[in-house]
Amino acid sequence: MNSFGRIFRVSIFGESHGPSVGIVIDGCPPGIPINTEDFEDEINRRRSGAKGTTPRTEPDIPEFLSGVFNDKTTGAPVTILFRNTNTRSRDYSLFTKIPRPGHADFVAYKKYKGFTDYRGGGHFSGRLTLGLVAAGVVASKVVNDMDINAKLIEAGGMKDIEKAIDLAVEKKDSIGGVVECVVSNVPAGLGEPFFDSVEAVLSHLLFSIPAIKGVEFGAGFAASKMHGSEHNDSFIDQSGKTETNYAGGINGGITNSNDIVFRVAVKPTSSTSIKQRTINIESGKMTDLEVEGRHDLCIALRVPVVVEAVTAIAMADFSLLIRAFEQNQK
Amino acid sequence: MNSFGRIFRVSIFGESHGPSVGIVIDGCPPGIPINTEDFEDEINRRRSGAKGTTPRTEPDIPEFLSGVFNDKTTGAPVTILFRNTNTRSRDYSLFTKIPRPGHADFVAYKKYKGFTDYRGGGHFSGRLTLGLVAAGVVASKVVNDMDINAKLIEAGGMKDIEKAIDLAVEKKDSIGGVVECVVSNVPAGLGEPFFDSVEAVLSHLLFSIPAIKGVEFGAGFAASKMHGSEHNDSFIDQSGKTETNYAGGINGGITNSNDIVFRVAVKPTSSTSIKQRTINIESGKMTDLEVEGRHDLCIALRVPVVVEAVTAIAMADFSLLIRAFEQNQK
Amino acid sequence: MNSFGRIFRVSIFGESHGPSVGIVIDGCPPGIPINTEDFEDEINRRRSGAKGTTPRTEPDIPEFLSGVFNDKTTGAPVTILFRNTNTRSRDYSLFTKIPRPGHADFVAYKKYKGFTDYRGGGHFSGRLTLGLVAAGVVASKVVNDMDINAKLIEAGGMKDIEKAIDLAVEKKDSIGGVVECVVSNVPAGLGEPFFDSVEAVLSHLLFSIPAIKGVEFGAGFAASKMHGSEHNDSFIDQSGKTETNYAGGINGGITNSNDIVFRVAVKPTSSTSIKQRTINIESGKMTDLEVEGRHDLCIALRVPVVVEAVTAIAMADFSLLIRAFEQNQK
Amino acid sequence: MNSFGRIFRVSIFGESHGPSVGIVIDGCPPGIPINTEDFEDEINRRRSGAKGTTPRTEPDIPEFLSGVFNDKTTGAPVTILFRNTNTRSRDYSLFTKIPRPGHADFVAYKKYKGFTDYRGGGHFSGRLTLGLVAAGVVASKVVNDMDINAKLIEAGGMKDIEKAIDLAVEKKDSIGGVVECVVSNVPAGLGEPFFDSVEAVLSHLLFSIPAIKGVEFGAGFAASKMHGSEHNDSFIDQSGKTETNYAGGINGGITNSNDIVFRVAVKPTSSTSIKQRTINIESGKMTDLEVEGRHDLCIALRVPVVVEAVTAIAMADFSLLIRAFEQNQK
Repeated sequence: MNSFGRIFRVSIFGESHGPSVGIVIDGCPPGIPINTEDFEDEINRRRSGAKGTTPRTEPDIPEFLSGVFNDKTTGAPVTILFRNTNTRSRDYSLFTKIPRPGHADFVAYKKYKGFTDYRGGGHFSGRLTLGLVAAGVVASKVVNDMDINAKLIEAGGMKDIEKAIDLAVEKKDSIGGVVECVVSNVPAGLGEPFFDSVEAVLSHLLFSIPAIKGVEFGAGFAASKMHGSEHNDSFIDQSGKTETNYAGGINGGITNSNDIVFRVAVKPTSSTSIKQRTINIESGKMTDLEVEGRHDLCIALRVPVVVEAVTAIAMADFSLLIRAFEQNQK
Repeated sequence: MNSFGRIFRVSIFGESHGPSVGIVIDGCPPGIPINTEDFEDEINRRRSGAKGTTPRTEPDIPEFLSGVFNDKTTGAPVTILFRNTNTRSRDYSLFTKIPRPGHADFVAYKKYKGFTDYRGGGHFSGRLTLGLVAAGVVASKVVNDMDINAKLIEAGGMKDIEKAIDLAVEKKDSIGGVVECVVSNVPAGLGEPFFDSVEAVLSHLLFSIPAIKGVEFGAGFAASKMHGSEHNDSFIDQSGKTETNYAGGINGGITNSNDIVFRVAVKPTSSTSIKQRTINIESGKMTDLEVEGRHDLCIALRVPVVVEAVTAIAMADFSLLIRAFEQNQK
Repeated sequence: MNSFGRIFRVSIFGESHGPSVGIVIDGCPPGIPINTEDFEDEINRRRSGAKGTTPRTEPDIPEFLSGVFNDKTTGAPVTILFRNTNTRSRDYSLFTKIPRPGHADFVAYKKYKGFTDYRGGGHFSGRLTLGLVAAGVVASKVVNDMDINAKLIEAGGMKDIEKAIDLAVEKKDSIGGVVECVVSNVPAGLGEPFFDSVEAVLSHLLFSIPAIKGVEFGAGFAASKMHGSEHNDSFIDQSGKTETNYAGGINGGITNSNDIVFRVAVKPTSSTSIKQRTINIESGKMTDLEVEGRHDLCIALRVPVVVEAVTAIAMADFSLLIRAFEQNQK
Repeated sequence: MNSFGRIFRVSIFGESHGPSVGIVIDGCPPGIPINTEDFEDEINRRRSGAKGTTPRTEPDIPEFLSGVFNDKTTGAPVTILFRNTNTRSRDYSLFTKIPRPGHADFVAYKKYKGFTDYRGGGHFSGRLTLGLVAAGVVASKVVNDMDINAKLIEAGGMKDIEKAIDLAVEKKDSIGGVVECVVSNVPAGLGEPFFDSVEAVLSHLLFSIPAIKGVEFGAGFAASKMHGSEHNDSFIDQSGKTETNYAGGINGGITNSNDIVFRVAVKPTSSTSIKQRTINIESGKMTDLEVEGRHDLCIALRVPVVVEAVTAIAMADFSLLIRAFEQNQK
């Protein structure tokens, strides 16, 4: 399903080389100020341009199709559209027969019986994350008391990220990375058992971002090597603050008032200039493939802003949901 | 929300020391044979008893409250109940004031304003996974063409798991572990963009299992250190089989006919015999806490069967969903 | 789907002659007092016994399987079970071949390919409404500021209902009726565009009650014969109160603070002692059918309490939902 | 929620005098041919122009923002947009203080705390049904084996509809009507217990159409005056065909292979040229109100095409859903 969320609910649509990409936000509270400028910074962070990212540059100006009146949300669904303007006419149809390794070419063609829009990845394209970023801007206004910060902490296995990019450029081969996100000023009590724990909902959204192959909270995989006495975070005050934060701010799936901390693993961009072996699906013959065109050498550079966006979306949904129950208990 | 799934949909309920735990399965196809014996093996695998697991032993015999007639599912909701019989009377109320580090005591009390059933973890207890295991048995009959196998591949940071348990017993301190799951015989095309990729849905369910703090697919976090030319899996036949499987059987969120492979990080059991520092929430005084009672020294030992169960649930849901579209395309 | 509701969400299960019927309530606020006695009156109202209703009498004592602790809801799913004890052994299998006119025998057998539990209507039985009544008791505590009253205002086309029943008994032929429900003390603002208007959600629940074939709000079908100047309700105070209430308390799908008023049409009980023509599905031969056993001559007598229950469920869900947005606007 | 459907799922957005109205269709099977011309007839039927309808005439040409490639659906979300071009600049802000009787002015202002887009009804406008009509065109291609026909069978209480309109024009006062819909060629087995009966789902969608105040299936309210022996439809062949069709093609909430038949009551248009009494919400003073502008004297004239559209949407969703289970039973 191309929708997610219980109260603050987003529905994504669009294709890389179709007319547009966009998002509908249902359940957005009324009265939230919305201006085109509010989106600029995040859209710029997401856009290509840095060393290691693709030169495709589109203005990416959000168009508000619904739900905004007098520069404020109305309570009705907010629809935000981005026109695709810079779609080059190269022929992608080749890849329906000779699927690019690592890409969705094969599965898309198979799943949609040849009707898929294969151009530039179609609906599977990373360009779809533009809608997420836009929804994230709105969501972060709903939870503007929280601070959500994601950054690339490792690329190609190296902490020195600039150096890693230089090496990738030199080798003309793409690299991956690790993005860490910290959410501060989180109230205790967010998250819902059994299936909507903070980890469950966040990971659902995070794994929806193309190229993410791992998610871990707090100590994460390292926790599996620790002793309980070491991993358990000791409470140090009545608000729930703990001495350490190996749990990543989450106990039993519910926020405990400490920072939410998690990391995501970003695989190397599937597009690479290196020659690869693949198969012609029709003839069954093995063949060499060199993929030209605009590639991100390190897509991980563009992931932090998207991670922040989906985190804001999850936080907005959780926050609205607990409000439903808070009044009742008075 | 305590429900999950679009077509094959499970709703979980119960508390560790309340009358029962159980699950309702909605959208279960009719005609699936169901017998008490079908559940025995998986329930036994989940049950304590091995070295490193708690001595709490209950018969755990599934009671079919609805949806089964003449030993077959009817198409109506299947409700499976497990009575709690072995609930010792120790006083857990202490932990609402002096929350155990690593446990859900603090967040549960906070979130539910003191009305939570705090006994034995209540609704947050690992005992709830019994319902998941039961649903998994039914789900695996829906997708009985697939093979789903999970096993503990590391405990306490060691590959020799028996030795790791011995060390934990010696130190009287709990340990975590890593569980790997492989799904074979998977058709291409399972998974739904944008938000219901196989990774997204599986991780949602996996992070709903208590104690899971990380999930990675295929190469996972190691992918972040690889080059694209190395990570991309080359297709070697027309069915989509690849030479390597760094993608874990999933491209663009959709299965590509190779084995689905993923790993989950299990934190060390929060309960440990080691003395810990914590705080009295009411008085604000720091205090020492020694938690006695039945503990799993290595809860990870009991996780594989639950991982298999939620994987079967996800596969059943995905499989029923693609059938909805397959006829249409003829 | 056997679940309904966004926040206060009910999942129904059970069969008439299986082990039990019941309901799971997810999203129930914590701290709501729950006692067996709270359910007595409503269960008695629903139960048979009056002239024109079936003599099947079961104790129908609710069993709380989860979500209740110290006689209060905990915030976890509340599961309420009713054991079936008075299930006579008559052979219903006949009706899978010779379907009773008006009943679900034919469609159930067809839809579930012969695996349906056909005994006593199985999952289609009116006995399932027992779970709705129980959930309604809980829901009415969530919205205890509102008054919800439904009553039978017409039976067999007559306003004198007692007389109508007497005539039906005399003719040994079942009759239908009309139930009217009024909800007082309703705040303005309940209901959600576009698809979750108060009328849409209420009718969804009302048409889930067996035997309901029509639903109308305010003037309803009579509105189709009125002029706009006559039908429009004039506002008479600032709170939204109107002089007339042809709209049934709902404008644009949203409550306007006047009483919600609606009526449902209940068809005559399908079971009747009168001989009927039907077909043997296997042989294709027409045949006469006389249905013996326990029948309600006027099922409409038992409908008001169920109408109140589903109305309470809808109101609880709407009320919790608007709370999510109210705090935000301060 | 502004979304509806489980598999074929529509999300509606837009405002009457905002930039646009539109719809996103998720779960649309790939390979369905889509051309602008396919929408013309239905859009024309919905558009104003006939005697008794408003003179607002916009081209209403559908713009496909996503999900269509080479004139066929791709399997990705289909977004259809209609620009608002003919939005006159009259001042609707008056109605936030002096709400029009029968309109959503009051509830919208109250619910959305003054942030609502009040112009021309905003998100509550009948113009939103344009998106439904567009989705209906697509849905009817999914279930193109069925015939769905709705027509106005009564206006202002008269069967002679032309005469009714003439009278309304003469009196300058709006009138309502009754629309009947018949669906032919329906397979047995559509509809889902407990909460998703055909009646429940259809009524949910029908009551989402502005101005609908009643829905009845088969004999509907007249059934409440019938005897069981009279109302029960006798089966006359093995496919489930019945002699009469008082049940409207639905038993136990499931289609029985006979025509689905239902009627909806349409209230008179709230806008009327007749002077009305209302209140100034701010001052509390009673005042007279004459609403000028473009009105439909009989909005019921424009309802049939919308009724067909939502019926097609429901049928598409039910049809895709049963396919999920059909393969399994072989």
